[in-house]
Amino acid sequence: MLSVVILGTGNLAMHLFRAFSRSSGVRVVQVVGRNPESLYWFSGLVSTTTDFTIIEDADVYLIAVKDDATAEVSHHLHGKKGVVAHTSGTVEMDALIPENRGVFYPLQTFTKGKDIDFEKVPICIEAKEEQSLIILRSLAHTLSQNVHEVHSEQRKKLHLAAVFVNNFTNYLYAVGEEICIKEGLPFDLLKPLILETAEKIQSMSPKEAQTGPARRNDQKSMQDHLKLLDNEKHIALYKLMSEAIKQAYEKKL
Amino acid sequence: MLSVVILGTGNLAMHLFRAFSRSSGVRVVQVVGRNPESLYWFSGLVSTTTDFTIIEDADVYLIAVKDDATAEVSHHLHGKKGVVAHTSGTVEMDALIPENRGVFYPLQTFTKGKDIDFEKVPICIEAKEEQSLIILRSLAHTLSQNVHEVHSEQRKKLHLAAVFVNNFTNYLYAVGEEICIKEGLPFDLLKPLILETAEKIQSMSPKEAQTGPARRNDQKSMQDHLKLLDNEKHIALYKLMSEAIKQAYEKKL
Repeated sequence: MLSVVILGTGNLAMHLFRAFSRSSGVRVVQVVGRNPESLYWFSGLVSTTTDFTIIEDADVYLIAVKDDATAEVSHHLHGKKGVVAHTSGTVEMDALIPENRGVFYPLQTFTKGKDIDFEKVPICIEAKEEQSLIILRSLAHTLSQNVHEVHSEQRKKLHLAAVFVNNFTNYLYAVGEEICIKEGLPFDLLKPLILETAEKIQSMSPKEAQTGPARRNDQKSMQDHLKLLDNEKHIALYKLMSEAIKQAYEKKL
Repeated sequence: MLSVVILGTGNLAMHLFRAFSRSSGVRVVQVVGRNPESLYWFSGLVSTTTDFTIIEDADVYLIAVKDDATAEVSHHLHGKKGVVAHTSGTVEMDALIPENRGVFYPLQTFTKGKDIDFEKVPICIEAKEEQSLIILRSLAHTLSQNVHEVHSEQRKKLHLAAVFVNNFTNYLYAVGEEICIKEGLPFDLLKPLILETAEKIQSMSPKEAQTGPARRNDQKSMQDHLKLLDNEKHIALYKLMSEAIKQAYEKKL
């Protein structure tokens, strides 16, 4: 049974805590956070403290705080025997102070109050020392079948890719919602399409799945669409996206 | 029991045929198409013909051909008693010749060989005459619980919104795939995130669901990301998307 201390009280900390609590191979021994109010959510469920000088001993310390506070928090873990890992997509492993450092990065979007099935969440691990890697892998496997060793440079690129498929995609959903609302139509009309678009690429490369006016270089439809748009940013986005899609497939012809 | 003739043999025609075949309230009496090879898929299952002058009588004629062939095909249905409806997101209802004209537009992306649960597919109907509307509504309800009366101008906007949430979103997935492949990482790593991003907005407005560096105006992360990109189109897209997201939330503050 692996013992874990979670440092941080945000969204990811909560989701990790909940997932570990359900797992039989892990015991969370403490949650440490600056903010007593956020810490309150954990109290009664686990030992908590706002005092970073009385962190308990554990096999793994998971730092789940804001990116720019990660290095600072790791200072408090200097000299601890357990593995010290952060959970960020962008922070380099070597930003951590302790020698027995590593990374434990679950590649998923976590929403307050919405449960995540961790079994399918890819967990990207990295460690400076081989022994730390073994422990992090074993910890990751208590949650997920989808564990990958990913080094810091790869992880940064992966996080960048995640911005495209998550943040930017969500913005496109917001554009769709805006167009519907302006027409007095419920955004619900687009929801099955959104889901199917995401489901389709689970078993098919998005390159093959591409359809639409830009894909078939249908100038008339694209011109008609541009006339229907009035938001300047949406127009620019429509043009750039269509140009990028056209170009991606021209190359292949 | 409603009788239907399907005109067209493409992807949508196949999906509609399959869905109607499973429905107890509809009988497809004929499939009509120019292309004998595509028509072959239907043969043995239903009466088929390549001859547009011997179209059988039916309650509804569904035209599921390419947009620019829609009007022409409707010529052949002039004088028929049944409702003549096209299935396009962009063609105006009045492009059809017959008086008893309408639209039967299932708002979904249809992939060859991938089954769709029609029960949740929004079907947008429109008709010139009230009696035609009643018939189209009744036909739509044999497939889906999600039937909406949507006029031609609204339907065009809806189709435009669909380009954003389907075609453009899929392109973002392709960018994510490209970044992964270049790093020697499997695209599979992004799939659970892609699915969760789509699932999240089923119960939450995308405006509320927006996260990421642009949303919190985190200049450093955005600069770091731009340095990691080498494809010119991806850089332009990253900048425009981030600018659009930033602006959308600045306005609200």
